[in-house]
Amino acid sequence: MTTRIDGRRPDALRPVHLATNVLDFAEGSCLVEFGRTRVLCAASVEDRQPPFLRNTQSGWVTGEYSMLPRATHTRSQREVERGRPGGRTQEIQRLIGRALRGVVDLEMLGPRTITLDCDVLQADGGTRTASITGAYVALQLAVRKLAAAGVPEAAIQSPVAAVSVGVIKGVPMLDLCYEEDSTAEVDFNVVMTGGDDFVEVQGTAEGKPFSRSAMDALLDLARDGILDLFEKQRVAIASAG
Amino acid sequence: MTTRIDGRRPDALRPVHLATNVLDFAEGSCLVEFGRTRVLCAASVEDRQPPFLRNTQSGWVTGEYSMLPRATHTRSQREVERGRPGGRTQEIQRLIGRALRGVVDLEMLGPRTITLDCDVLQADGGTRTASITGAYVALQLAVRKLAAAGVPEAAIQSPVAAVSVGVIKGVPMLDLCYEEDSTAEVDFNVVMTGGDDFVEVQGTAEGKPFSRSAMDALLDLARDGILDLFEKQRVAIASAG
Amino acid sequence: MTTRIDGRRPDALRPVHLATNVLDFAEGSCLVEFGRTRVLCAASVEDRQPPFLRNTQSGWVTGEYSMLPRATHTRSQREVERGRPGGRTQEIQRLIGRALRGVVDLEMLGPRTITLDCDVLQADGGTRTASITGAYVALQLAVRKLAAAGVPEAAIQSPVAAVSVGVIKGVPMLDLCYEEDSTAEVDFNVVMTGGDDFVEVQGTAEGKPFSRSAMDALLDLARDGILDLFEKQRVAIASAG
Amino acid sequence: MTTRIDGRRPDALRPVHLATNVLDFAEGSCLVEFGRTRVLCAASVEDRQPPFLRNTQSGWVTGEYSMLPRATHTRSQREVERGRPGGRTQEIQRLIGRALRGVVDLEMLGPRTITLDCDVLQADGGTRTASITGAYVALQLAVRKLAAAGVPEAAIQSPVAAVSVGVIKGVPMLDLCYEEDSTAEVDFNVVMTGGDDFVEVQGTAEGKPFSRSAMDALLDLARDGILDLFEKQRVAIASAG
Amino acid sequence: MTTRIDGRRPDALRPVHLATNVLDFAEGSCLVEFGRTRVLCAASVEDRQPPFLRNTQSGWVTGEYSMLPRATHTRSQREVERGRPGGRTQEIQRLIGRALRGVVDLEMLGPRTITLDCDVLQADGGTRTASITGAYVALQLAVRKLAAAGVPEAAIQSPVAAVSVGVIKGVPMLDLCYEEDSTAEVDFNVVMTGGDDFVEVQGTAEGKPFSRSAMDALLDLARDGILDLFEKQRVAIASAG
Amino acid sequence: MTTRIDGRRPDALRPVHLATNVLDFAEGSCLVEFGRTRVLCAASVEDRQPPFLRNTQSGWVTGEYSMLPRATHTRSQREVERGRPGGRTQEIQRLIGRALRGVVDLEMLGPRTITLDCDVLQADGGTRTASITGAYVALQLAVRKLAAAGVPEAAIQSPVAAVSVGVIKGVPMLDLCYEEDSTAEVDFNVVMTGGDDFVEVQGTAEGKPFSRSAMDALLDLARDGILDLFEKQRVAIASAG
Repeated sequence: MTTRIDGRRPDALRPVHLATNVLDFAEGSCLVEFGRTRVLCAASVEDRQPPFLRNTQSGWVTGEYSMLPRATHTRSQREVERGRPGGRTQEIQRLIGRALRGVVDLEMLGPRTITLDCDVLQADGGTRTASITGAYVALQLAVRKLAAAGVPEAAIQSPVAAVSVGVIKGVPMLDLCYEEDSTAEVDFNVVMTGGDDFVEVQGTAEGKPFSRSAMDALLDLARDGILDLFEKQRVAIASAG
Repeated sequence: MTTRIDGRRPDALRPVHLATNVLDFAEGSCLVEFGRTRVLCAASVEDRQPPFLRNTQSGWVTGEYSMLPRATHTRSQREVERGRPGGRTQEIQRLIGRALRGVVDLEMLGPRTITLDCDVLQADGGTRTASITGAYVALQLAVRKLAAAGVPEAAIQSPVAAVSVGVIKGVPMLDLCYEEDSTAEVDFNVVMTGGDDFVEVQGTAEGKPFSRSAMDALLDLARDGILDLFEKQRVAIASAG
Repeated sequence: MTTRIDGRRPDALRPVHLATNVLDFAEGSCLVEFGRTRVLCAASVEDRQPPFLRNTQSGWVTGEYSMLPRATHTRSQREVERGRPGGRTQEIQRLIGRALRGVVDLEMLGPRTITLDCDVLQADGGTRTASITGAYVALQLAVRKLAAAGVPEAAIQSPVAAVSVGVIKGVPMLDLCYEEDSTAEVDFNVVMTGGDDFVEVQGTAEGKPFSRSAMDALLDLARDGILDLFEKQRVAIASAG
Repeated sequence: MTTRIDGRRPDALRPVHLATNVLDFAEGSCLVEFGRTRVLCAASVEDRQPPFLRNTQSGWVTGEYSMLPRATHTRSQREVERGRPGGRTQEIQRLIGRALRGVVDLEMLGPRTITLDCDVLQADGGTRTASITGAYVALQLAVRKLAAAGVPEAAIQSPVAAVSVGVIKGVPMLDLCYEEDSTAEVDFNVVMTGGDDFVEVQGTAEGKPFSRSAMDALLDLARDGILDLFEKQRVAIASAG
Repeated sequence: MTTRIDGRRPDALRPVHLATNVLDFAEGSCLVEFGRTRVLCAASVEDRQPPFLRNTQSGWVTGEYSMLPRATHTRSQREVERGRPGGRTQEIQRLIGRALRGVVDLEMLGPRTITLDCDVLQADGGTRTASITGAYVALQLAVRKLAAAGVPEAAIQSPVAAVSVGVIKGVPMLDLCYEEDSTAEVDFNVVMTGGDDFVEVQGTAEGKPFSRSAMDALLDLARDGILDLFEKQRVAIASAG
Repeated sequence: MTTRIDGRRPDALRPVHLATNVLDFAEGSCLVEFGRTRVLCAASVEDRQPPFLRNTQSGWVTGEYSMLPRATHTRSQREVERGRPGGRTQEIQRLIGRALRGVVDLEMLGPRTITLDCDVLQADGGTRTASITGAYVALQLAVRKLAAAGVPEAAIQSPVAAVSVGVIKGVPMLDLCYEEDSTAEVDFNVVMTGGDDFVEVQGTAEGKPFSRSAMDALLDLARDGILDLFEKQRVAIASAG
């Protein structure tokens, strides 16, 4: 069987850790690690609505994403120095927001906003999927604290997690690290819910176009990985006290 | 059978027009219409490389995307007034660039950059898929003019086209107009090549998550629509003189 | 007699076309062509006032101007990429706003704003004068639709049109194309109303200063050209249905 | 005869002062006053060319313009806080640059740039015309110092000065102060050279359009005022030592 | 005894001038000169509070700082061209605000904002200390005019002035000019009140770290200089009429 | 004796931790904690010089500082969303750079730049002093790795550390937490080297001005705290392996 640069089997996740309540002030927080990728996820609850929800009782869930300048192998300039978040950053934070909103009943949340800040402390591939997976845990912990404010547990309808899959030298692989990602021929990010459904599927041919059957194989691989992630999320939340 | 708000069948494209060479100065151009959606695509060839390709013989293909302020039902503020392109704009222009690069042999292109400017004159849903479909035509016309500079026709390896599909009240539909798009439960943008392969698949659950089988039905629908678009592209390019 | 690079007589306009209602969503629209210069003018009516008119019953008319990146012979960077509209853009959009306001009774318009977006699809000189000429047509069509809201036709007090004139190798010429404009010794933009009066006169010596008599000759030439433009505007509006 | 708010006759300038060499570091400087309008003009010589003159021996002259926040009756926000110079600022600094270049032989200047910074310490109308009039003096003083570097006096071909004129309650008036300017029906800024020629004429109908004969009367008035300004410039430069 | 480049003794201020009411529109103004350093300080009173004081009766005092592009030996680019105030500018304007607030009873000021604009016309070292010293004078003159509005003189509790001190070749010196400042081993800016107390002490080792005793010597020197400045401020305000 | 809100004595530091090599890619790194304040310090070595050092053999050391949006009790907007680093951020990152440069021999460093990124994961007062203290450790670890490139250990001439001190209800206190800091009458940040000298002293009266003797007491307190920090730095570096 093919062995990967870090010795994993093609269908194996990297070691995944989800440390909960790592911040003292945030309503919920989770430090998620997918191998050397490390993302600090903080959930902040604010009693305000975005302008387009005014005059409704609905809440909102949104994501923000950023990488520390030395998260990567070589240092990158801070985006604030260029005066605006780059296209990649905006794309990822829009994805995080959609993924989390996909499992939240915004009406039950009531007129408040929960912001999931995903700050990448170290980046070794899969930062957006780790962000979604960790942000879900932070969100759960924050919503739990809203029980006193009358927000039911059912406001979160399902777990949500994400993983990357890709084809490298013709072999479908799960949870790509940076070096794999940069040589992948095809790259998918898959976001699924506990109901075995998809919230988001984003597949891109980096080199040459991919067939329908290749796509099917990747989605099967992603599903298995996400089932593992759900279990890890469940344990982390249960033991968060 | 379900009828759509504009009388189409679920599996029908809107009327598609591809007018070629509509600009006097651009190396290639195409005004593409998907129903009331109208995008002006201009291909500009420049003898320069992006910084990361210096010291190579490789070329580059990139896309830019913008909407005129009154492309939409109500007027939007120009992005230049806010000082930066929005997240949606950046996401779309990155997609256009990837889609076109997916069918170009950048080595054959030689040390030059082709920019595909996709400016939306009127927006009624599907502006990104219309942009990709029209940009391919503009790109072909521009590359044709590079024959004298020694760029072979084979630098473009395949046609590429894109279409949106979505689920509305449970029914999978092809090529959504704005009103449909804003009520769709699921929304896919699919980019395919002439070799029946995918360059990009982006699917999002707007309301509730979607199943694997729903996804399969949508991809079948998209494939049929894209085959139609290839034929229209072929005719437009052939008659461009 | 002197012949011009495009065969025109010094006192001849380029072929002028004014296509009306070319957009489906804008309250008024006009695609104006002065030769190869092509500007899409859209009038948008909004029920809001600029801050400085609050607590009055007065309306406002304003203009915005932009060039598509490949409107010109070689591609220009989008202004949004530089983070702000350039000086030339701002100068032109201020001129468009003043020109149109010069013929509108803002009190009669009532507490609303009409924005004239002038987007240059192709630029071959005279884009600001074509913009004003086309924007007037778009404005008329938009105001006509406001009759139901109680805005009288008399809110527009007169037609307004604009043309450029210049001196090339000592000869005064009407409606300069780009190549003429870039070699002109003197360059005037003249905006007039139907009452044979001026709204704006902007004359600049590009190379050497100009005499009072040269200026008089140019203004005569501009007046004749503008009379022609009024007639074309009248026909376009009358046939707009 | 009509008397003005400050007691002047319609054809009278405000008291004009041109103090020279008011700065210790600038190559040339002039503090110009038109009544209460006060502009500090500094000429800076730098041994660099703008990019578009590379590979030529030509120099460049450019202008920059700004108002101190409390130059005006009520305080204005600094433009740097809004992140960019406003449209009016850019319009004026482009005008200053064109006006000065209109009397300079850029070839004789050699491969250097002279920047005329016009900073308005106090604004009471006519800041752009005062800027041009004072910047000419600063420019002369700076070019004089370039004699040692081989720049001939003839590099400046003529004096240049500017004044505003306008129509207030039907009466043409010279050199409007702020209060007059804000009620003027017509407003002209006129820039002339010592050869009795125009570099720039900018006339705007603020309220109602103006006739050709009104324009003629204003230009006569402006010419008389500018002749006075030339004399004051001559004296200031001669006595600058 | 050591003599300095401009002939001063180590413990001597440069010639200091404080010209009052130099602006016609500002509520208070002072042109302050420390040798060739020249700063125009304008106090503007506005009947508005910053957002964080809403629902209080407290006022606010704030400072803004800018240098004209040719204040310095060679021309600097305007910060507005870079789109934002630089770090040094922000640091200085925060210092000015804190220094002035240090002697104002904001409650007595009532619900209004006084902005001290400090615009450096010429810079030869010590621009921030000159700004604070001159801004105090402008502030006093502005508050005096607020007596009619019920603001007591006691709203300003004490004079405040500032001076720089530094060590050059081992010798502590008062009020550094630019050339001294750029070779100083240690550089302090000291802000004191009339009660012999400090509002701000900022000391930086430019080259090598400094000892506690060096610091003590510098603070003694600064105190003496500031006592002189208080006297000059007193005279200027008293004679302002 | 006075007890503080967290039970500390006035002259006690909070628990300080310095975890080394916490990042896999950075040349040096340190996670520093002063109580609940937590800053991730990363040292990045790049073989490039800032423009002003071109044509020299000198290196450069610079600092950057940022707070995660949920570092604080309530969430703050990211500075990138406002398009620029705020004044406070710029002030702090300039301070960090000066502090570290104060103990580095830039000539010995050779033509390279070391950037110290200080990203505040959690903020409870003293973030700038913790940043300097931790950045020194990261710097040491990075320079150690440069031995192979010929950079001598002596390039770092001394340790450097920083602490805040302040007066609360008349009592001088060491190492203020956020709640103390926000009620302090006087606030000092002190940066010292191992040679018992100062690199920077910044003292500010928040409420009422402070006397010379109060300042002396605070500096004594700071010195004692910094001696403790030096010991903790020494241990952390020694055990970093």
